[in-house]
Amino acid sequence: MTGKVYLVGAGPGAPDLLTLRAVNLLKAADIVFYDALVHPDTVALADHAVKIPVGKRCGQHSATQATINSELIKAAQHHTHIVRLKGGDPLVFGRAQEEIDALDEAGIEIEVVPGVTAALAAAAELGVSLTRRGLARSLTLLTPKVGDYEQESRWRQCARYSDTLAIYMARDEARQVAKALLEEGLSPDTPVVITVNASRIEDHEELHMTLIQLSKAEDLRSTAPALILVGDVFR
Amino acid sequence: MTGKVYLVGAGPGAPDLLTLRAVNLLKAADIVFYDALVHPDTVALADHAVKIPVGKRCGQHSATQATINSELIKAAQHHTHIVRLKGGDPLVFGRAQEEIDALDEAGIEIEVVPGVTAALAAAAELGVSLTRRGLARSLTLLTPKVGDYEQESRWRQCARYSDTLAIYMARDEARQVAKALLEEGLSPDTPVVITVNASRIEDHEELHMTLIQLSKAEDLRSTAPALILVGDVFR
Repeated sequence: MTGKVYLVGAGPGAPDLLTLRAVNLLKAADIVFYDALVHPDTVALADHAVKIPVGKRCGQHSATQATINSELIKAAQHHTHIVRLKGGDPLVFGRAQEEIDALDEAGIEIEVVPGVTAALAAAAELGVSLTRRGLARSLTLLTPKVGDYEQESRWRQCARYSDTLAIYMARDEARQVAKALLEEGLSPDTPVVITVNASRIEDHEELHMTLIQLSKAEDLRSTAPALILVGDVFR
Repeated sequence: MTGKVYLVGAGPGAPDLLTLRAVNLLKAADIVFYDALVHPDTVALADHAVKIPVGKRCGQHSATQATINSELIKAAQHHTHIVRLKGGDPLVFGRAQEEIDALDEAGIEIEVVPGVTAALAAAAELGVSLTRRGLARSLTLLTPKVGDYEQESRWRQCARYSDTLAIYMARDEARQVAKALLEEGLSPDTPVVITVNASRIEDHEELHMTLIQLSKAEDLRSTAPALILVGDVFR
């Protein structure tokens, strides 16, 4: 017997920003592997499943990718309906490909269920279009390579020419990223919004500043996921 | 009496890719204004609401933006709970800002509910990470300016340096876009996936080709929304 693995996006944080498809798959699941960032109420929807936390929260201990892969394969050999629940959308900075490839290689059927990614939830809370007509024709979701701030970096060029930027997983290096963007010629007064736990009522935070202010900001380290939004649409 | 307007993302097409929050708001709605692209089953969730179609489907007649704005304002003067239902996510190429600004100016309360945008649904169907580790650190959602294929166009630079591209609303000019990307130095064998009606079981289409093939492709015109995905992650 081999089960099927559903790679499911849990959305940005608020339990009611889950899709109906995700709800139905959780309710039918035999076993659920979930990231630490997924809301407990979302995990609880899987009311008759074995629930296994597998990380990942920045800076804290979590299962390695190889361990997660082999646990998913083992689960598919013993269960019919397996859900792998990931924060946001599984295919945007979710390291899903490693899991898809490992399952594929083991001959296990996979289905991906998309979710609302953090940038969209953050924009909704601000009530600001990420692609405001006349101001923005492009929205780039990006994660800079840690420590890679060379002038010729591809991500710097990409950021330079994108109208709106949503920078994922860059909290620890936010200052360096801001400095790089200034060097690329972005205006010092370009608006920046840092959102933490977008859409979560209980612990949502929002910081508004300019690019020059971010380049001089004090330590923004935190275990919570932060998203840095940059662009004239936020003015 | 003034009502509240909810600007709600209907997701990419499949009715079960709607969020729980959107379902609850539709069920409670007095009146719903919906785009032509929204699935009828999604609109039908608003079982006690007046339902008003307001466009927009490419190339077909639809209400002008000014008319939609004034209808929304009028509705808020006569109803408590108004839903404006838009395909995908309201803040990504949805022209939401015009509606937000008009409602703001009229002193009407607005809340935005994010949705799954087409690029994420298309990637889920392909089972391909848009940000595969080692291949892609950036995903750009963009819509080129129609007729603007000058060498120095900002969107061209942006596209050139982005690892993965999701080009919205460019079906009619797909060939010109492909030619521009080739001129920017993208490899002729860069994989391209064109998806139409992503996530809709009844009429989903998927075309796989290379960038050079797209630059020579025959007419791709259609009234259905198409999304063009470009990048090495699709290889």
